[in-house]
Amino acid sequence: MKSSTQQAIEITKANESKIGQVDFENLTFGNIFTDHMFVCDFIDGKWQTPKITPYAPLTLDPSARVFHYGQAVFEGMKAYKDDNGDTFLFRPDENFKRINKSAARLAMPEFPENYFFDGLTELLKLDNEWIKPGFGNSLYIRPFVIATQAGVSASEANEYKFMIICSPAQAYYSGDVSVLVAEKFSRSANGGIGYAKAAGNYAAQFYPTNLAKKEGYQQVIWTDADTHEYMEEAGTMNVFFRVNDTLLTAPTSDRILDGITRKSLIDIAKKEGVSVDVRPVKVSEIVAAAKDGSLKEIFGAGTAAVISPVKAFGYQGNHYELEKQENSFASLFKTALMNIQYNKAEDPFNWRHKI
Amino acid sequence: MKSSTQQAIEITKANESKIGQVDFENLTFGNIFTDHMFVCDFIDGKWQTPKITPYAPLTLDPSARVFHYGQAVFEGMKAYKDDNGDTFLFRPDENFKRINKSAARLAMPEFPENYFFDGLTELLKLDNEWIKPGFGNSLYIRPFVIATQAGVSASEANEYKFMIICSPAQAYYSGDVSVLVAEKFSRSANGGIGYAKAAGNYAAQFYPTNLAKKEGYQQVIWTDADTHEYMEEAGTMNVFFRVNDTLLTAPTSDRILDGITRKSLIDIAKKEGVSVDVRPVKVSEIVAAAKDGSLKEIFGAGTAAVISPVKAFGYQGNHYELEKQENSFASLFKTALMNIQYNKAEDPFNWRHKI
Ligand SMILES: Cc1ncc(COP(=O)(O)O)c(C=O)c1O
Ligand SMILES: Cc1ncc(COP(=O)(O)O)c(C=O)c1O
Repeated sequence: MKSSTQQAIEITKANESKIGQVDFENLTFGNIFTDHMFVCDFIDGKWQTPKITPYAPLTLDPSARVFHYGQAVFEGMKAYKDDNGDTFLFRPDENFKRINKSAARLAMPEFPENYFFDGLTELLKLDNEWIKPGFGNSLYIRPFVIATQAGVSASEANEYKFMIICSPAQAYYSGDVSVLVAEKFSRSANGGIGYAKAAGNYAAQFYPTNLAKKEGYQQVIWTDADTHEYMEEAGTMNVFFRVNDTLLTAPTSDRILDGITRKSLIDIAKKEGVSVDVRPVKVSEIVAAAKDGSLKEIFGAGTAAVISPVKAFGYQGNHYELEKQENSFASLFKTALMNIQYNKAEDPFNWRHKI
Repeated sequence: MKSSTQQAIEITKANESKIGQVDFENLTFGNIFTDHMFVCDFIDGKWQTPKITPYAPLTLDPSARVFHYGQAVFEGMKAYKDDNGDTFLFRPDENFKRINKSAARLAMPEFPENYFFDGLTELLKLDNEWIKPGFGNSLYIRPFVIATQAGVSASEANEYKFMIICSPAQAYYSGDVSVLVAEKFSRSANGGIGYAKAAGNYAAQFYPTNLAKKEGYQQVIWTDADTHEYMEEAGTMNVFFRVNDTLLTAPTSDRILDGITRKSLIDIAKKEGVSVDVRPVKVSEIVAAAKDGSLKEIFGAGTAAVISPVKAFGYQGNHYELEKQENSFASLFKTALMNIQYNKAEDPFNWRHKI
């Protein structure tokens, strides 16, 4: 895409593929990786020759900055295969821009666009067999950058590793989830790094999420840290509320990840003539809507699960169940989005990127 | 200290020491590590046999959780040697408690007390030559825990590595610093992880600190994320303000690290008859005190630099210089604290721990 690399990628192929050992019918998310990985080191102030090598462990000094000061950002994207065997990415330019936005917030160097796209393309060609056709099957792609410089002084590193690893994924129907609205814990601060896909944002959520699990909820919907009065997002998903026939979702801010699924759904909904209100969403109005029956749906939106319908939420010790909807927006939009991703429908927004 | 290990530490000594190659007169902070390291793996729900091995690189899967979801906590402590060649730690039980408090907030398993103290003791015996006597010289000790489990699903890991690495340090007089009071960026949220020594908290600070550096300030004093009206702490130090002859410092909270230097200084100051007000400190009152001349000193307090006097601060585009004080609290308390640490004075609080 865009410019092509001047600096050729150095490719070392795996002697043997591991693909024969993989049970593609029973994949758990993010556990198995393909034969190759993409690696590019930032040393002496510049990104060195990018490489594709057999998937292999990393060797790092115990004092590497990533272990001590958390300079680590990542992306999550998917490759989809249609029935003709053609491979597609979905809005990969958005992931590229976002990883560099995340990197900048963590004082990490930006990665060159041609390295990103050429690396991705070469890797997907080499490991193409790992992308299984079939609606819902995909190859989950994880670009990430870590600070590798040795030494424990608390400042940004001058050495980094940009990598891409890939993991085959099946559609996952984890069932409808119950979510707990955060009243005390928070995910991010005003003026903080919530909008960045920074590793440290995720570790912060596990403990409060575990507390929610003990109460029977699978996920937390984070609220603003100041007042806890506004709905923000879930752990790895943005959140939509359907009140009557209007969709509500919080505006992005420096606390909220600018999700690609979220913004794609907003566009799809508008095109379908559904009214979408992007504005601060009060917890109290959602509670009121749940009580008077105007709250029809809640769903999460993110690359991994596409759309996750929410069947109930907890808040201030109360539990609110949502009625199952026929022709839910969740399933309508999920299908519309996946049809674009899997090349089963027109692509009016030009989101598909053929490899 | 406390209980002794049942599980003996497996020790593999380095064949040769690197100590001869080290220029102890010209150390930069945190760059050189001693001959050995302490490692203990958490696997199958329990901490395995602790080991001391030659200092060596780690091998981790590229999908190890620490790289993706930032589960990483650490401590910073020092070993001091007196003129008799005896080695001391300073309040190590506080570091032990704090690393487990940090770990709990990040959904990481707590580390056993006897492993911590026995590991530390054995390591300091083996690498004792690296601790140089002389006021200001020390061995900086970095315990840390990272999530090592492979796999990119966004939940807490079930495998971890607890390690201790050590780096010889000299007293560092970086000179008096200028600090910028944060007006837009923040370090941590209410209900967040600011009180934990979590890796991700540090990466978040580098970018705003770099912006401050461009304006001629070396560090940022973070304010509360909600209003930016209250002084909180600096990047790796708690902060004290001397107004007339009273010391002010913010109370600890879920946003602020409960610093060991901070609480030790509070005790020392009280014992010296200096009044200490631990209460929310308004930026506006410090600005007013700077204007009317009642603001005598600002200083940071933390293990690495002990006490860092501040010579000026910036806020809302204004620059406030502090007059140099004779008999400053900063130097008074620094000496008092170091005298205890280096076994040059009584230890009325029982803070010294002999190895
Ligand atoms: C915190 C957070 N919010 C929202 C999302 C959804 O973003 P996207 O739709 O780009 O996958 C993600 C990532 O998957 C996330 O980590
Ligand atoms: C954020 C922060 N505040 C304060 C301190 C000071 O704590 P201590 O005195 O325990 O070193 C540190 C650590 O050094 C720190 O990282």
